[in-house]
Parts: sequence; structure tokens; C-alpha cells
Amino acid sequence: MLDFDGWVCPAPLRDYPNIVMGHGGGGKLSAELVENLFLPAFQSATLEQLGDSAVVEVGGVRLAFSTDSFVVRPLFFPGGNIGDLAVNGTVNDIAMSGAQPRYMSAGFILEEGMPIIQLAAIAQSMGAAARAAGVSLVTGDTKVVDRGHGDGVYISTSGFGVVPMGLHIGPGLARPGDVVIVSGDIGVHGMAILSVREGLEFGAPLTTDCAALNGLVAAMLACTQAIHVLRDPTRGGVASALNEIAAASRVGVRIVERNLPVPTAVRAACEILGLDPLYVANEGKLLAFVARDAAEVLLEAMRAHPLGRNAAIIGEAIADHPGMVVARTSIGGTRVVDTQVGEQLPRIC
Amino acid sequence: MLDFDGWVCPAPLRDYPNIVMGHGGGGKLSAELVENLFLPAFQSATLEQLGDSAVVEVGGVRLAFSTDSFVVRPLFFPGGNIGDLAVNGTVNDIAMSGAQPRYMSAGFILEEGMPIIQLAAIAQSMGAAARAAGVSLVTGDTKVVDRGHGDGVYISTSGFGVVPMGLHIGPGLARPGDVVIVSGDIGVHGMAILSVREGLEFGAPLTTDCAALNGLVAAMLACTQAIHVLRDPTRGGVASALNEIAAASRVGVRIVERNLPVPTAVRAACEILGLDPLYVANEGKLLAFVARDAAEVLLEAMRAHPLGRNAAIIGEAIADHPGMVVARTSIGGTRVVDTQVGEQLPRIC
Repeated sequence: MLDFDGWVCPAPLRDYPNIVMGHGGGGKLSAELVENLFLPAFQSATLEQLGDSAVVEVGGVRLAFSTDSFVVRPLFFPGGNIGDLAVNGTVNDIAMSGAQPRYMSAGFILEEGMPIIQLAAIAQSMGAAARAAGVSLVTGDTKVVDRGHGDGVYISTSGFGVVPMGLHIGPGLARPGDVVIVSGDIGVHGMAILSVREGLEFGAPLTTDCAALNGLVAAMLACTQAIHVLRDPTRGGVASALNEIAAASRVGVRIVERNLPVPTAVRAACEILGLDPLYVANEGKLLAFVARDAAEVLLEAMRAHPLGRNAAIIGEAIADHPGMVVARTSIGGTRVVDTQVGEQLPRIC
Repeated sequence: MLDFDGWVCPAPLRDYPNIVMGHGGGGKLSAELVENLFLPAFQSATLEQLGDSAVVEVGGVRLAFSTDSFVVRPLFFPGGNIGDLAVNGTVNDIAMSGAQPRYMSAGFILEEGMPIIQLAAIAQSMGAAARAAGVSLVTGDTKVVDRGHGDGVYISTSGFGVVPMGLHIGPGLARPGDVVIVSGDIGVHGMAILSVREGLEFGAPLTTDCAALNGLVAAMLACTQAIHVLRDPTRGGVASALNEIAAASRVGVRIVERNLPVPTAVRAACEILGLDPLYVANEGKLLAFVARDAAEVLLEAMRAHPLGRNAAIIGEAIADHPGMVVARTSIGGTRVVDTQVGEQLPRIC
């Protein structure tokens, strides 16, 4: 019944004969799985573009289509739960193509024994998040697995929206000279999850920044069409997102560490735990690569939006060292900001 | 952090404070979860139609959009694996709106420790199934959960296709007088899974009937536009699908048991195990409700297609007892074919 003869696994997957947590971390191991296993199997030119969402044309309409599975632990955390995370995560992936999300689906994998009252609270959060983002949950599916083969609930959401005609935003479209803007404080979602999971307290309590970014994106596009790349730096954080863009666009990226908006509580928690905020997951933040002459006006427009109040210019795209991200450190040196191999914090989304 | 005050759980969910396997069975418990928990939370008129796929309009184009999560155990079974099942399942849900599926997404929830070579075989099956159905896998996501919180791999697929202008097919559109056709042998997928799961042998080996039905649907629509309902009788089998249609269309349904195409091996296995083939899951079969005067020509067109060779007229929609399905038994009596409460065979898809 099992016939693996036809399949030759290219290096370096052979180094790991079995799945490890890092394969889900959004870092190098995840990328290897996609490049060496899924892409050859699926043979799709659109998939190969590796955007947060796929842009496809149907009946003369350009649609941004995206999916995400959510396995965050714990299910409820400060400021949110797996339900609003699952809605906002897919809303944001669609928005990163410049599209307004319209319709969504939700698939639930429930573990036998899960309290129904918890599921109800999660579903209500999903409904509220969808209404807040202006998107309709129109189809779904529910499966149940035996106790000990799940973790309460896993949620997969998919959705699509219309990409305005003539708009082209994608991870491969950054150009040397582009300015890199982040929409606000980084590292908040990851540290909020970690604080509750590990029972840590870091002075001021951290709550997730989980939010739907399609409103912010609409405000940005109303300001300028010179946005080349949008990306929400979730798993793997800002560092991984910048590396993906640098690789896809064949540009170098240079950021200035002291310009990164890192809240004191995140910085303190990261220092205690030996984590780098650049690699910590966000859920309500975006990175934008924009033409230099539109950067200042875009920054102002972003700061006028509630979800962009702390927006900041953090760097630029350059022609040097294509595919590589470097940071000027606070003491004046330069370091390479590499993609992590596995992940610092598993099951963050 | 948890605030359930705002949520009042309507009966009968209170009977089960926790999720049980039957909530995923496609029977009454599943329906209660949808009606009493998800619908009030999501507040979507499209969701309330409860088709296999949701039909929505975007930019003047009508799209059928569907999602499904797959948790079948074991991952590999006679004639298929979770990968082609996950592709064909969503292809078929889209096809049941009369649409040709175009684009799909795939989300993977991997369990730590899963052999990568198994995942590769599953991904290759998905790619092959997608190409066979003429659909492109364009976007995806991979998460990893700790050992003991999954079962190898769970796969969620979503997808959409274009519904031809003027075509209206849906579970609520059956009319009294419609003829009910099934496209072939029933109960095969469920018994194939059960035989390998329980180590049973029933003489001739059973292999799954898992297949993409969009080609058959295209052939049917080329023959007649008088098809009112299409449904693939997966979880809960033919009995549950007919009950859903009877309820949504407010018609009665009368079937003739001896006209049901049940293969000898399925019948024998069901007899040994005390199962009713009407409730066993299928994955490559469909039910069609068609206007009476188009039924014979449609049946012929279906039989001319490789996936419809054993198509048969099994009953009719009637004005009597709306919402209820009855069967004339082989000994001449009549019995009510109710929806099951939970499920006979968990984790069949």
C-alpha cells in the first residue's frame, strides 16, 4: 500500500527523517519543507511565489486567497484567543496582497472532551472578529478526534478578497532604495503567549497585539500606490519576514536596530529569556516596503490610523548583498540578521 | 480572561457539556453544534444555507467556496491516503454547486515525530489528485504540534470555482416529483477504512471509491440543466445526505431499498458488523435530484462516464411528510430513514 519508491528526498531534508517542532516555526526548516517537499509535489507556479496569499484570476477578477492553521497553546491568552487569532491571521494574509478580505471559511478539529462552553466562546470571538474586519464566515467544517490526539481545538481558516485592478504588491517586488516601515511595536504577541504559558510576569502585563490590518492597509493604499511589499511578521518575527522579502526580491535589507519600536516590557522579557525581539511573532503588525519619495507621507498616514500610531521607518532595501538582511547595532556595529533554523517559541499561532 | 456570561447555550447542547466523537459524525449532534453554536456566533446568511459549498458573488463572478478538515485514521488505506482524500473531498464539495473547482489551499497540522517520507508520499498524492481534477494548489500552511497532540497529520483543504451564470443547484432546491439518482455503489469508502483499521477481511478486499466528481458533474450538466440538488454523501452516508436535503427543501423523500447499489462485499461486511450501508460514508459518489422528465437521459449520461457506470434511480421527492425520508424495504414494508445521532464510524474522512 505504501509506495515511496518514486520519491527521492533532496538534501537537506534527509538530515531530519522525522518532523520536529522547528518544521512549523516559519524558519529555515519550514522553508526546506516547502521547497523540497511541497513545491515539487504540488507543481504550482503561483505557490512558488510564496506570498502571504496567492493572487489568482477568476472570471476577470483578481483574488487574493489564503489559508492558515492555528494551533496556539493555550487557547485563551491575554487579549485574545485562538478564535480571533484565526480570523485576523487570514484577514491579514489577504490584506498583505492589498486586497480587502470578503469571505472566509473555518474548519475545526476538536478534541473529544473539550468543554463546549469554551468552543462557544471561541466561535463568538471569531464572529466578532469577522464583523470587525468586514468579512463573512460563509462555510465551515467540524471534525472530532479522540482524546489525546488533539489539544482542545485546532482551527484552519481560509479566505479571499478582491485585489484592485492595477495593484501589484508581493514579496518579490521590493526594489533597492525602498524604505522599510513597521506599523508599530514588535514582539508583543509572542511574549504575551509566552508569559501566560510559562507563568512568567514581567512587570506590566503583556496582551496580544492581534488585530485585523485590512483597515490600515486601505488607509495606506488611499495615501499611495507606491507600496511594493506588505508582510505581516508572524512566526519567525520581523527577521524572518525581512529575509523572505530579501530572498524573493533579490535585494539586500539594512535595518537600524535603535529605530525598531520594541516596548519596554517586551525588551525586558526578551533579555531575561535570552530571546531576540526581531524573531518574536507578531499578529497585528505589518512591514511595508515603499518607494523612498512616498515614505514620509505614508508614515504620516499610518500614524493617523489607530493600528499604526507607533509606525516607524526601520531601514531600507539596497542593491548590496542581495538576499541578506543586516542590522546596524546600537553600539555602531553591523550584524547579519539570519533566518532562524527552527523556532524560539513553538505553537505561537 | 474567560468570560462566558454573555453566552446562553440553547438546548439540547446542554445535554453534552463536552465534545464527544459524535459531534464530528455528520449526524444530529453535528447539526446541533452548527445550529446552536456556530450559526448564532457567525451570523451569516450564506452559512445558514448549509450547502456543501457556499456560493458567493465577487466582482460579478459567482464562486462556490468550500473547506474541509481531514482526520482519517489510518493515514494510508486501500486505494488512497489522507492526501488524495483531502483534495477530492474539497473538489467534490465545490462540484456539488455545479462549479468547476479552480484553486485550492492546503493547511497541514503535523505531529512531531511523523516520518517525513510519509508526508512526502501524502503531498505527492495531493499533487496528483489536484492535477487529475484540473485544480491548482496555490497556497498553504504548515504547523507542528507536540507529540501526543496530533495523529501524524491532519489536513485542511479549501478551494473555489466558478458557478456558471444562471445555474442554481443547492440542497434547498429539490421539488416534489424530482427523481433521486445515486452515481454508483454506496458504502465503499467507509467499509474500506474500517476493514484496514480493525484488521477485518471480508473475502474480496474493499478499496476506497475516493475520486474527484467534477468531471462527472460537467458531463451531467452538459446533458441537462434540470438538476436541482447535488450532494456527495460522505459522513453519515446516503441517509444523512437525503435527510439534509429533505429538511432544506421541505420535501419528503421516498427511496426503494432494493434499488440501492450496494456491493456484495459492503453488504456482507455491514451484516457482520451490524451496520446499515445507508449510513456508511462514501467519497466518490453523488446524489442528484433531477426533474422527472430529464431523469432517464441524465441516467444514461451518467452511466456513460467512468464514475457513473453503476448509477441508479433510487427514489423520488414527494410532497408528503416534508423533511422525512422513508424507504420501501425489500420485504415490502416502509421504514423511516432517520439521521443518526452520532456516528457509526468515527474519523472516516
